[in-house]
Amino acid sequence: MKQFLEITEEGEVKRLIGDLSAELAKKITAGAGVGGGNVGAGGGKGEKVRTEEALGRTVVGDIFSPLDIPPFDRATMDGYAVLAADTFYADESKPATLVVRGYLKAGEFPSASQYGGVEEGSCVGIATGAPIPRGANAVVKVENAFEFEKSKKVRIYKPVAPAENIMPAGSDIKRGEKVVKKGRLLTPRETGVLAACGVREVLVRKKPRVAVISTGNELVAPGEALSLAPGKIYDVNAQTLCDSARENGCAPFSLGIARDEEGEISAKIRESLAKGAEVVILSGGTSAGVGDVLPAVIEGLGEILVHGVDIKPGKPFVLGVIQGKPVFGLPGNPTSALITFHLFVAPLLRAISGEGSEGRGGSEGRERRKRVKAKAGVRIFSEPGRNEYVLVNLARAESESEEEQEEHFLAYPFLSGSGAISTLAKADGFVFVEKGKEIVEEGERVEVVFI
Amino acid sequence: MKQFLEITEEGEVKRLIGDLSAELAKKITAGAGVGGGNVGAGGGKGEKVRTEEALGRTVVGDIFSPLDIPPFDRATMDGYAVLAADTFYADESKPATLVVRGYLKAGEFPSASQYGGVEEGSCVGIATGAPIPRGANAVVKVENAFEFEKSKKVRIYKPVAPAENIMPAGSDIKRGEKVVKKGRLLTPRETGVLAACGVREVLVRKKPRVAVISTGNELVAPGEALSLAPGKIYDVNAQTLCDSARENGCAPFSLGIARDEEGEISAKIRESLAKGAEVVILSGGTSAGVGDVLPAVIEGLGEILVHGVDIKPGKPFVLGVIQGKPVFGLPGNPTSALITFHLFVAPLLRAISGEGSEGRGGSEGRERRKRVKAKAGVRIFSEPGRNEYVLVNLARAESESEEEQEEHFLAYPFLSGSGAISTLAKADGFVFVEKGKEIVEEGERVEVVFI
Repeated sequence: MKQFLEITEEGEVKRLIGDLSAELAKKITAGAGVGGGNVGAGGGKGEKVRTEEALGRTVVGDIFSPLDIPPFDRATMDGYAVLAADTFYADESKPATLVVRGYLKAGEFPSASQYGGVEEGSCVGIATGAPIPRGANAVVKVENAFEFEKSKKVRIYKPVAPAENIMPAGSDIKRGEKVVKKGRLLTPRETGVLAACGVREVLVRKKPRVAVISTGNELVAPGEALSLAPGKIYDVNAQTLCDSARENGCAPFSLGIARDEEGEISAKIRESLAKGAEVVILSGGTSAGVGDVLPAVIEGLGEILVHGVDIKPGKPFVLGVIQGKPVFGLPGNPTSALITFHLFVAPLLRAISGEGSEGRGGSEGRERRKRVKAKAGVRIFSEPGRNEYVLVNLARAESESEEEQEEHFLAYPFLSGSGAISTLAKADGFVFVEKGKEIVEEGERVEVVFI
Repeated sequence: MKQFLEITEEGEVKRLIGDLSAELAKKITAGAGVGGGNVGAGGGKGEKVRTEEALGRTVVGDIFSPLDIPPFDRATMDGYAVLAADTFYADESKPATLVVRGYLKAGEFPSASQYGGVEEGSCVGIATGAPIPRGANAVVKVENAFEFEKSKKVRIYKPVAPAENIMPAGSDIKRGEKVVKKGRLLTPRETGVLAACGVREVLVRKKPRVAVISTGNELVAPGEALSLAPGKIYDVNAQTLCDSARENGCAPFSLGIARDEEGEISAKIRESLAKGAEVVILSGGTSAGVGDVLPAVIEGLGEILVHGVDIKPGKPFVLGVIQGKPVFGLPGNPTSALITFHLFVAPLLRAISGEGSEGRGGSEGRERRKRVKAKAGVRIFSEPGRNEYVLVNLARAESESEEEQEEHFLAYPFLSGSGAISTLAKADGFVFVEKGKEIVEEGERVEVVFI
C-alpha cells in the first residue's frame, strides 16, 4: 500500500477516464456481436426486446426496412383515380366525363376481377391512403370533380399530370434501406419508424451492470433496520449512486455495506465482478483517516491508476482497474460522492451505456449538464491552493437592463459543510473556483453547473 | 354531427387545454388522498413504492424526517474529543497534556462504563463520524496533537473553542423537518435525503393511465401480422403516441386499431374509460374525408370542445370530454400526429403526471422543448392563410463572427409530404411560420423547436 497520496490533476484524470471509456465501450460493442447471429447467448452484450419496450434503449446494429413504404402506390388525396391523359385540356367550361367503375376505401385492394383496372374513359373513386387501381396513373381531387347520373359518371374540371397525388410504392422508404443507425438511442420517432416497417423486435445494448458498495462501520442500510443503533447513521450513497447510475443508462445493483476492513471490501468487490459488473463504485473508506483501506484492497486485486485529485471535494478519489473493470472509490460524504460521480463516473457510464454517445437523444439530452450564468450574491471564499467546486443556491435577481437577461441569477454559497445532507437536498449547483483564486468577489460573474 | 369545421385559434385551444389540465390535476391530487390515510385503496391516485424504486416519481405529500440528522453529536475531524477549556492557552511551547481514555471509531458508541465520559484533564481519540463522548465539547484535530507514553497521553498544541469540529445532533436536519416538498419529482438527491432519514417507502402519484386508439381500415398492428395484406399498412401511431405518453410521465396502454366506423370507435373509447384511462388519445379518422366519424362518436358520448385548429398540420384536430375525461383526436399521419401531440396533449399529460409542474427536475428538465436559433438555408414556403409548423433539418454553418455563435445553424425544410415516415425519422425540428407570412427568405432568422 502506498503511504502517501499522489495527487493527480483533474484534467489528467478526465483524459484517463476518457481513454478508459472509449476502450470499454469498444469492447462492449464488439461483445454485442453485431451481425454475429448468436446474440443473447454467452457473453454477448446485446439483447432482443419488443419494439413496444424499446423506448430509450440503444440499438446495437443498423436496422434496415424489410419492406417498401408505402407498400403500394397510394392515393394522397380523396378523389378519382384516372388516366391522366383523359383529363388533359379539361376546364370549367369543357369538363372531361368519365365512367365511375366503383370506389376504393383505404385498406381495400382492387382485384382485377372487381374493377378490371382503369381504362380510357373510366375512373375509380378513391380515398386518401387507398391503393391506386391498375391502369390509373393520377388522382383528381374530389373538389375538382362532380358526379352525376346517380354517381355512375363524373365530370372532371381540372387536368392532372401523370403521377399527381400518388405516392409511389417505396418512395418514402425503400425495402433494404437503413432506417435506424447503429448506436442510436430510440425515441418515439425511431420506434414509430420501426413500427411502420413492421419490425417487432430490436437488438439493443444490454444496460451495463454497475455494482455499488458503501463502506463504513457507522453505516446501516435504510431498508435493513427500522431504527438506528447508537452511533450509527443511515447509508445515503447506495441510494444516490444507484439512482445516478440508473439516470446514466446503467443497471445498478447494490451490494450493501462493507465494514472498513480489507477482507470485507475485497470480498464485496470480487462478488461484484462475479455478478457481471462492468463498473464497481465504492464510496467511503478512502480518506487518510482511520479507515483508509480501499486503496490497499485495489492494489491487492488489481492496479491503482489515480489516488487523489487536486480538487475539493474529491481529494480522496481513487480509480483502479481490476480484471479489466474500472473500480471507483468516491468520498464517503454524500454531496462529495455525488459531485465526483458527475465529474468522473457519469461520463464513463454514458459512454458504455450508449447514452450521450452517438444517439440524437443522447447527445442533445444527457451529455452536458445544464449551466446558467450568474453573479456571486456574496463574496465566495475558496480553499487556497485547491481547485474547488463550491455548492451554491440560485436566487433570481432583477435584471438591470434588457440585454442582461441571461444574468438574472445570483449565486450564494452554502456555508454548512459538504457533509450535510440538507446541502444535498437544497443546493442548485456548483461554481468552479480555480486554484490560485481564493475569493470570488460579490457581483463577479460565475457559471453555475446544475447538479 | 356538425356538418362543418369550426376552426378554433391555436392560442384559444392552448388556453382551453391549460384550464382543463389544471382542473384535472387538482382532481387527481385531491383523489390521491394527501394526509387522508386510506391511500392505495379505492379511487386514490397515490401508490406506495419503495425508496429504491422511487426515482423519477412525484411525491404526493410533504415528507418529514422521522429523526435528527445527525442523530448524535458527531466529530467532523479525526482527533481528540476534549473539554475545550483544557486546551485554552495551549501553544507549541506550552502544550496542554491530557490522558487518553480510549478510542472511538465511526459506528461505535461510548457507553458510560467504557469511558465514564471525558473529564477535566482527559480526552478520547475520535474518528470523523464518531459520536462525541459524554463530557467532551470540542474536537482537537489530529494534526495539532502528539501522543506519548505508549499513547496513554497526548499533547495538545492548539486551543479549540467549545463546539469546534462537532456537528450537533439535528443541526443538519431536525426531526419533524420537511425534507421533500409535495409535488417534487424525485432525483437521486431527494432519494438520498430519504435514505438518510431512513424513509423506506414513499407515497407517489400513480402514473395516469392513457388509452391510445388508432383508427383506420388500412391499418394493421405491427405485432399482429407478420406480413401485410394488399392495401394495408402498419400502424405507426400506437407506437409513437404510447412512447410519447411514456416520456411525459404517463402509463399508456394501446387498445389497438378501430375500423373507421362509429360502433367500433365508440366501443374502444368506452373500453378505455372502463379500464381507468384518465385521457384517451385517438389518431386518424378526423379528416373531412370518407372516414370522418370520430367527431360524431364524441358528440354521442360526451361533448366536443374543439373541432379544427387554424394550424398546419392539425386542422382536423378534435378535443372532446367524455365522462369528465379529455378525448383527443389527432391527425392520422404520423408526423402530424406527433406535432399536435406535442402542442396540445403533452402539456396536459405533464400537468396530470406531475412532470414539469412543481418539481425541480420537471421544470428544468422536461417542461420546455429545446430551441435553437438558426437561419433559413433556403426560401421556406408556407401555406397562405395558415399558421404552419414547417418540419426542418438542421445543418451546421460556419459562423461569420465570434459573436454570432448561437446562429451557426441553417434550417432546411422537408419537401416530402408530412405523410412520409422518413420525415418522422429525419426531421430535427420545426419552424413556426405565422399566418400572413407566406415566405421565409433564405438567410432570415428562424427559431427551430426540436421534436
